[in-house]
Formats: sequence, structure tokens, C-alpha cells
Amino acid sequence: MRSYDDAQLQELAAEIRAKLIEVTSLNGGHLGPNLGVVELTMAMHLVFDTPKDQFVFDTSHQGYVHKLLTGRNGPEFDQVRKTGGFSGFLSRSESAHDAFGAGHAGTALSAALGMAAARDQMGTDEHVVALCGDAAFTCGITMEALNNVTAATKRLVIILNDNEWSIAKNVGAISKYLNELITNPLYNRLHHDVGALLQKVPGGEQLLKIGKNAEKGWKSIVVPSSLFEQFGVRYFGPIDGHDLPLLTRNLEFAKESDAPVILHIVTKKGKGYRPALEKPESFHGTSPFEIKSGKSKSKPKPSPENYQDVFGKALVRFAKADARIVGITGAMPSGTGLIHLSNEVPDQFYDVGIAEEHAVLFAGGLATRGIRPVVAIYSTFLQRAFDQIIHDICLQNLPVLFCMDRAGLSPNDGATHHGLFDIAYVRCVPNAVAMQPKNEDELVDMMHTGLELGCPAFIRYPRGAGNGTPVKEAPQALEVGKAEILKKGEDVALWALGPMVDDALELSERLRVEDGISASVVNARFIKPVDQELLLSHAKTHRLIVTLEDGVKAGGFGTAALETLSEAECSTPVHRIGWPDEFVEHGSDVATLRASVGLSVDDMLSGIRKKLKTPSIAV
Amino acid sequence: MRSYDDAQLQELAAEIRAKLIEVTSLNGGHLGPNLGVVELTMAMHLVFDTPKDQFVFDTSHQGYVHKLLTGRNGPEFDQVRKTGGFSGFLSRSESAHDAFGAGHAGTALSAALGMAAARDQMGTDEHVVALCGDAAFTCGITMEALNNVTAATKRLVIILNDNEWSIAKNVGAISKYLNELITNPLYNRLHHDVGALLQKVPGGEQLLKIGKNAEKGWKSIVVPSSLFEQFGVRYFGPIDGHDLPLLTRNLEFAKESDAPVILHIVTKKGKGYRPALEKPESFHGTSPFEIKSGKSKSKPKPSPENYQDVFGKALVRFAKADARIVGITGAMPSGTGLIHLSNEVPDQFYDVGIAEEHAVLFAGGLATRGIRPVVAIYSTFLQRAFDQIIHDICLQNLPVLFCMDRAGLSPNDGATHHGLFDIAYVRCVPNAVAMQPKNEDELVDMMHTGLELGCPAFIRYPRGAGNGTPVKEAPQALEVGKAEILKKGEDVALWALGPMVDDALELSERLRVEDGISASVVNARFIKPVDQELLLSHAKTHRLIVTLEDGVKAGGFGTAALETLSEAECSTPVHRIGWPDEFVEHGSDVATLRASVGLSVDDMLSGIRKKLKTPSIAV
Repeated sequence: MRSYDDAQLQELAAEIRAKLIEVTSLNGGHLGPNLGVVELTMAMHLVFDTPKDQFVFDTSHQGYVHKLLTGRNGPEFDQVRKTGGFSGFLSRSESAHDAFGAGHAGTALSAALGMAAARDQMGTDEHVVALCGDAAFTCGITMEALNNVTAATKRLVIILNDNEWSIAKNVGAISKYLNELITNPLYNRLHHDVGALLQKVPGGEQLLKIGKNAEKGWKSIVVPSSLFEQFGVRYFGPIDGHDLPLLTRNLEFAKESDAPVILHIVTKKGKGYRPALEKPESFHGTSPFEIKSGKSKSKPKPSPENYQDVFGKALVRFAKADARIVGITGAMPSGTGLIHLSNEVPDQFYDVGIAEEHAVLFAGGLATRGIRPVVAIYSTFLQRAFDQIIHDICLQNLPVLFCMDRAGLSPNDGATHHGLFDIAYVRCVPNAVAMQPKNEDELVDMMHTGLELGCPAFIRYPRGAGNGTPVKEAPQALEVGKAEILKKGEDVALWALGPMVDDALELSERLRVEDGISASVVNARFIKPVDQELLLSHAKTHRLIVTLEDGVKAGGFGTAALETLSEAECSTPVHRIGWPDEFVEHGSDVATLRASVGLSVDDMLSGIRKKLKTPSIAV
Repeated sequence: MRSYDDAQLQELAAEIRAKLIEVTSLNGGHLGPNLGVVELTMAMHLVFDTPKDQFVFDTSHQGYVHKLLTGRNGPEFDQVRKTGGFSGFLSRSESAHDAFGAGHAGTALSAALGMAAARDQMGTDEHVVALCGDAAFTCGITMEALNNVTAATKRLVIILNDNEWSIAKNVGAISKYLNELITNPLYNRLHHDVGALLQKVPGGEQLLKIGKNAEKGWKSIVVPSSLFEQFGVRYFGPIDGHDLPLLTRNLEFAKESDAPVILHIVTKKGKGYRPALEKPESFHGTSPFEIKSGKSKSKPKPSPENYQDVFGKALVRFAKADARIVGITGAMPSGTGLIHLSNEVPDQFYDVGIAEEHAVLFAGGLATRGIRPVVAIYSTFLQRAFDQIIHDICLQNLPVLFCMDRAGLSPNDGATHHGLFDIAYVRCVPNAVAMQPKNEDELVDMMHTGLELGCPAFIRYPRGAGNGTPVKEAPQALEVGKAEILKKGEDVALWALGPMVDDALELSERLRVEDGISASVVNARFIKPVDQELLLSHAKTHRLIVTLEDGVKAGGFGTAALETLSEAECSTPVHRIGWPDEFVEHGSDVATLRASVGLSVDDMLSGIRKKLKTPSIAV
């Protein structure tokens, strides 16, 4: 690529765009963000030299172009996000060009700072480049890192890829500030091009040549002191992110700078594909679509609604009936389903940006004053607010309702997005009540229950659709810590959480028909507190307790059953079905991933059979 | 107090200072921070009206003056931080004047914003005041909140209590920036007093009277656009934090402002007590001392060294021998013991401020480049970085060594500071290796082991001194996942972690002498992976397994034993000794707190006896 002339580079950019559109139209994926960084990523690879130089992509959903430019244009790219294909994110195990993997936002600057400090420590000379979206600056970690830049290193290139969107439209003061930088006539006196500007400044050409940044002095003549300069980082921009020669020139300059530099690059999310430009949120992460129209390929109706929409619509009903109920999201109104609340009851809706810690604390503050906050954050992202859950919400026993979507697998996204830890990490926190519904209707009952409880409550539910159970008109309060018996049997008791209740029903039927074994089936409902009474009674009347959960086994729900039986000095064996102690990669779908670790229904069935035949358990 | 004249108020301030010095000289506590905010807290209570108005104190270690001014000057105050006395922090359960409890830094702005939004939602008219130290602005959460202030409310008073210190001297760009605000001649053109300034501006008196802040226009004449104004918050300062009339005037102004306001108040940590002024870090949180000299009352030598010093000194030796080893702290060089590294090998030491998420990610970046980072963060504060532990360190299997001091109880500090959750939250994360040493020497062996492992490793150890075991010259690598047999017995096997190994030895001796029961004693060493081989062999040869740990039982080490036996279809009962599923308050010492939940040695002994007599276990 480095030998290409301008026309050839333009052609390459067009080819990359065509490839991105083609592959995501088949597999889904982060199309908009990648279309926006085609020229930027090309410029980075024209100026820097990976894998020697270290690129850190924030969240790294915008890394497709980087993959294509680092030898990954092949069948695995065509199968991106599917089993056997490349990850939709960057990953150290996928390529030496991927200096740091990611999937959660706001980590790039901090990690890059570590790399730069390591270089300084070791005395080597590689360059470190952090590519951060503007939304990354709504994350506390990015600001923590920004506060440490100048203390940690003298050389770091920060690229602020400003497209005015996180997943939804950006919110907050920093976003407004960046917008002002771009649109305000005063700020427009900024140089749009470091090279061109320096030529107008006395001695500027010389400065440009020796690659030293000019002194703060002359810069303050043209640039009002920027937010970033108050953090000691030199700011240049805004720069047109689709002008390849301009980008290359600015990156060359930044490369030679002897101080940390931030380049403010303005890009268009979805650039080069009309449907993606018109619907940035839909094409941030898209499902497969028709290229010509941009329309989704997923069957329209009458497949069951996604849990997120069941949740979102129910919350609208609750919020309309009670002005104290508010919904809080961290930049994911669509993904969480809070978009319904945002549209219909906007005064009871808060989008705080990608700021999970603040979202939870803010809810805590609201809760102390009689508001009933509902925090909707994916299971994997709520890990960010673990300390707030313990220290601010549960310790003070504040009535905040946590609705954790994507609990269980997020198959195409993979390891960074699976919600497999929440059962274990919530279960160890005092005062928490945790639940998982078996279907859509029970989700709404649990929301109702959680809102009435007066203590911290957590509801987890999976990505995608439920089993199509219609939601009844008036929700019903559930008794805390009481499980639901779905089927009475004698030999084995299957205690299942959430969607695995349906698996348990299938298993019980097959055990009956194929093995003549009679199984009780229990919808556990409460992860914490466990229904100890029923569990102990089952332990007395069945030979084996089987637990089924969509989470890691270590410290999970099955473990809660073990703890309960152990405390009661009951020795009935427990067979725990759940995820093993290893990270789970991406894959085409839930079934494929479950099969890969022995969690298909067949696997579960043979596991139970084997257990029932061990001498201590067999009749 | 509101009826007092200036002289009476000065007298009151002096009385409060004398009380603070007297009480902390007896109990220990956060003397320096409280001496610094005497006038400020008085001014807050002169201008605002709690409990109707809501004060949120960041971390709330500086809340003693507030306690004294809200009816808590009594015997419980004299016993502050002891059993039966008040907490050293604010707590909603202690007083209606404590709007939000805290103990970890950086939470005030976010919680206060929730309260302000709740007020706006409910249409009430109380004032919300957040008092944040300058160190709170090194925390990501504060910055996340700052980004959301103007979107969430139109009325909020933020007090920036700038004393240039967190626990240690502040670090980072924001700290430098604040210092520039105070010392730079240009910035000194700022008004020092809103009232005085407004009188000089046309129409200013009128503005002051009606309590409206002047338009941005006139302000930009005198004030260079400040960091805070780029976040949409109006900035006033610096203001002398020990001039009570000036403080009162500025707070009156802020109270009437129709936009969020930040008052930059400059205070002296330790004001009014020479030893505290001279040694701000020692008197941030002090142990009991002699008032006259300021000297610590704790016995000097030869009591055993604290774990933190054993850790810190060993790290110096490791770092001197290997330039790749670096230590990272979040503003706690003394508390963690990294002060030794900072003094002796400063080039291999990083203090990133109160920024645990960044500390861990920064370590991750360093680790990718061949550096061997040692992250020293208290167990309770590491909760902040749970997502970074999962998503950035363990998922990428990066060799970062986490040294978690204060694992177990932090008796005087209480619920916000006890490190009781780390076993449960680390145990559910794949790729993690977790250990706890039985004594000082084994801590150093574990550090050596962790540094050589090439994967994420966690070592937890308690606050305070070990049992005095001298550290041998050359550390020894431990075999991962292997426990140590200390005593061979037949009836019951006691598996203990850390300091509870000594308890187990005592229990075994008493069981032998008093009950004729023969107990094996095992130093478990590895929380993860558990020594399955030895545990299963013990389960076959003993009637009962007893686990002892200084952490919550839910999901803890005893649970790991249950999981191990269950997987192996072994029905030997396990008696788990650990902390119940409830938050633990502060208290005078470890023994008192343990006794309060049935964890004294006598309690443990009778628990084991009872268990051994149950029909299924009795011989």
C-alpha cells in the first residue's frame, strides 16, 4: 500500500468499503464504525509500522479495516463473528498486529499508556497509537488515563475519532464541547492542517522538519486553551477524517512529536453507504441486511419479541403509572430496550453515556430521595460497576432495580460480551435479591416484584427472544425466595434458571420416555435467596438434584444449592450444569457454543444418566 | 450556631479543633482532613439546612465536623471507630443528616447529581451540596458525573475542597491544573470573592441580590475558560477555605445560583495542629498519638512488621534484581507499602492517583510489552477494577500480579473497608491464580511465584502484622495448586487460609486435648486452583472437612471445597467457617468483630464439635 499513488489508494479505500458492506450484509457486524475509519486506518498503516508499532483500538469494533490491512482478508474474514471466522473485535490471540484486545469501551488510552511507559522503561523506540472514539471520553477510565498521560510518558499519539455517536447519539458535556470545537467560528480559527499552519508561522517549516512541536506560546495565539491541553496533552484539530493525504500529514507530524499529542479527527459513521449514514444507530452493529435497500434480512414477524423490548415496553407501562419510576442507560437505549421509555416517557429517562459506574451511583442518589430507578445495563458491562453495587447500593440497602440483559451468551460478539459471571458476582453481595425469569411474562412479574421490594434487586435475562409467552395484563408480585414447581417427579429434581427451564422440561420428558426416570422440574426463579425449603424437601425425596444455569459454575447457582444442602447437613448429590472455568469465544449461535463445551441437551442428558448410574446414587 | 457573632464562631472553630485532636489522639482516625474543613463545614451549616438540604461528602472521612455540628458530640463520638462508637465515615443509618454514606473515593458528585435530579423530578426545593476533595477528580466516576451535570440538573453546588493531597501528595494533570489556578498570576486575576467582584461589574449588585449568576459573557473577561466550564459548570475561586465570612458569602451566592456551580476552596490539611501540618500523610488517617509531640502511641518495636512493609521491602529486592518489575499504586504508597519502592527504586514505581481501573489497565498495557507489573490495591478498592480484571487481564491472560492488602477485616474503618469479597469475586474468573500466605515468609514466596507464573495472579493478605515469621534470604517458588500439610490427623481435616492457619493449629490442639479428636491441619495456600488431589484424599480418610477463611462464605473458599467434592461425587461433609451473608460494621478490633458473628476460636470449636456429633458424621 505504501507504494500506491493517490488514485490507487482511493481505489483501495473503495474496495475496502465494498468488502465491509458485503461481509456485514451476510454476517452482521459493526458496519457504521468501520466505514467511518477506512481512510484513518489506511493513514495509520501508511505512517506507522505494526506489529513493531503498537495500535490500541478502543472497544475495537472498528478494527475490521485494520484486519483487512494486516493480512486477514480471507475466508475467516468472510465468516467474521461466526464459528471458525475471525472475531468481530481485535484479539491478541488472533494476530500479532492486535496489540490489545477489547470489547468494552474506554480502555485504549490506559492500555496504550502502559505500552508507552514500558517502551520508555525498556529504552526501545516503537510508537504507540491509541485510537479512541469520542464516546470513550464519557468513560471514567479514559479520563483517569488522560490525567496520567504526561506523568507516564513523553511520547504517545492519541487519535480522537469524533463521529458524534457512541452507540446512540452522544450525550454529556464533553460531546457538546467537541461539537463546539468543530462548529464554533472562534474555534474554527484552529488550524485544520498542522503542516499548512506551521508554514505560516515564523520558523514553522523548520519546526515541521525537525518534527518538534512548536512551543505552547505560539499555539495559544491561534488556539483557545483546550480541554486536552489542561491535561497537558497537545491538541490538533479538527481534521477531516476522510482526506487521506491530510490524515497522513498530520500523523507524520504526531509521530515525530516529542510530547503526547491528540489529533481530533472528524469522521462520518457509515461513510460511503447511504443506509448506514441515514441510520447510524441501526448500522452501528447490524444484523444481516440486503445491500441494495439496507433492510434487515431477519424474518420480520411473528417471531417472539426480544426480551429487551418486553422489558422496555413493560417499563413504559410502569413509568406511566408511577412518576417515581425512571430508567437509566449507559449509551444503549436501543440495545436495552429503554428506547421505548425514551420515546414515550422522556422525562423519566436518563442516558448517561458509556459510564456504568456513574449510572449506578446516580441511581443510588435518586433512590435515597424516593425515586425508583431501574438501571438497564448488560450483564457484562455491569461488571464495571461492581464496587458501586457493593459499596453504594447494597451496603446502603437502596432500592435500585438492575435489569441485566445479555445474561448468558452473546454468541457473535464472543468472550468480551458473554454475560456469564453475574450470578457469581451478585450472589456474594449481602442484601441483594437476584432473579431470572423463565419467560417474558415472568420478566414483567419480576420487574413488578423488584420495584416493590425496597431493597437492591437484580433481574438477569438472555439476549434475543423468549419462548413467546404473552405478557398478562396485570403483573403479579412473586414471593421472594420461592421457586415454582412445574412438574412433580420422584427420581431426580431438575432446578433450572431462565431459558434453561425449557431445557429442563425437555430433559424430563426424554428421561421419562427413554429411561423411565421420573423427574421433577423446578423454575428456580430466585438465585438469591434460594428457596431452601423446597430444595431441602426435594433433596429428601429425590436421589439427585440437577441445577441448570447460563453462567459459570464456579460460585454460581448450582453452588448455591451445594451451600444450602451442606449447611443443612444433607448429602444428596448435586449435579451442576453450567459453564466451565474458561473464557468462551464467539460463535455462530448459542447451540454451537453450548455444544462446544458439552452443554447441548444431549450432552446434559448423558451427563445426568451417567450421574444416576454411579453406585452411590443408583437405586 | 447561626446566632453567633464572629468571635463566637471563631471560638467554636477552636473548640471543634481541640475536640478532633483529643478524640483522634485516643482512637486514631482521619485527623488531617477534618482539621482542614472546620470553617468550611461550619459555613455549610450556616448557609444550608440539613437534613432537608442534602450534603454528600466524598469518601466522608472528613465528616467529623459535620457529625459534631449535627448533634453527635457525645460518648459515641468519643468512641469513634470503636465498638459502640460512631463510624469514622458518614452513614445513612447513623443520622438523618448523613444523606449518603461513603468510604471509597469519588462517589459524591455522582450521588449528589442523583439527588438533584430527584428533586427536579419531584418538584421539591431542597439544595444539594457535594463536597469533593481535589483527589476525587482523579477518579473516573467523578469525571463521568461531571460530564453529566448540566444534562441532569440546573441546580447543584459542588465544593472542590483543594488541599493538594489525596492520601499521599496528589498526582496527575488535574492536580497540576488546580495548582496553576491557585498560583499562576494570570489565573489570579480571578475574583477571590464573588461578592466583592460583582460589586465592580455593572449591574453586579443587582445580580448578587437576585442571586442570578451573571452571563457567561462578563465572566470570560476575567476568567480564562476553566476546565470545569468546559463541562458546563460555573467556576468560582480560588477561595480561602479558612476565612469563614468569605466562605459563607460564597456559599450564599452558590445557593442562589440557577446553574450548577463549583466553588474552588483552598484548605490546609491539618490546619491548627502543627504535627498534622508538618506530616500530612501520617495524619491523613492516624493511629492514636500523643497530643503534645504528635508521636504515635503504638508500641515501637519489636512487634512484628506489618504485611504491607514485608511486601514493600520484598518488592524492592525483586525490583532491584529485575528492571522489568514495577509497582503500581492508586494514591496509597504508604498504606500498600510501595513507599519502599518509591524511595529506593523510584523509576520502577507508579502512583496513578485514586484510579483503580486505570491502575489495572495500565498494568495490562505494561504486561503486553514484557514488563512485570505488581498492582498493590486493597481488597476492597480492587472491587473498582473488577471489569478490568475479567475483560483486560484474565481474558488476555496477561501476567499481572495483584497484591491485595486489607483482605479480611479493617476493624476501625468498617463495612466500606473490610476486604471480604475478593475470594468470591476472583474465584469465578477464568485464568486467575489466587493465593493467601500463612505468614510473612510465605507472602514473599508467593510474590516470587506470582512473578514467575506468566498469568494473572492474586495474593491476598490481612491488615496489620503477621505472626512474626522471619523472611528467608532466597524466596522459594511454590507449586501451583498444592496445599501444605502442617499436621496429620484422622478424624477431621482443617483447611485454612492465611492467618486462620494459626487458628486451625490452635483448634486442632484443643480438639486433641479437650475432645480426644485427631485433626489434620492444612495450609491451603491456593484459593484457585484448589489442591483437589489432597482434598479428595482427605475427604476419603477423614469424617469431616472444615474450611476456615477470612471472607464471605457465599462463593468463597469453603464453597470451592464443596464444588470439588461434588464434582468428584464425594459425600464427605464440609463445615465452612467464614463470614455470613451480611455487611460487617466497624469495631474496636478483629477479635471483637469475629466474636460478634460467632467466629471466635471458642465459637469455631463448638461449631466443629456440634458438627462431629450429628448422626451422619459421628463415628
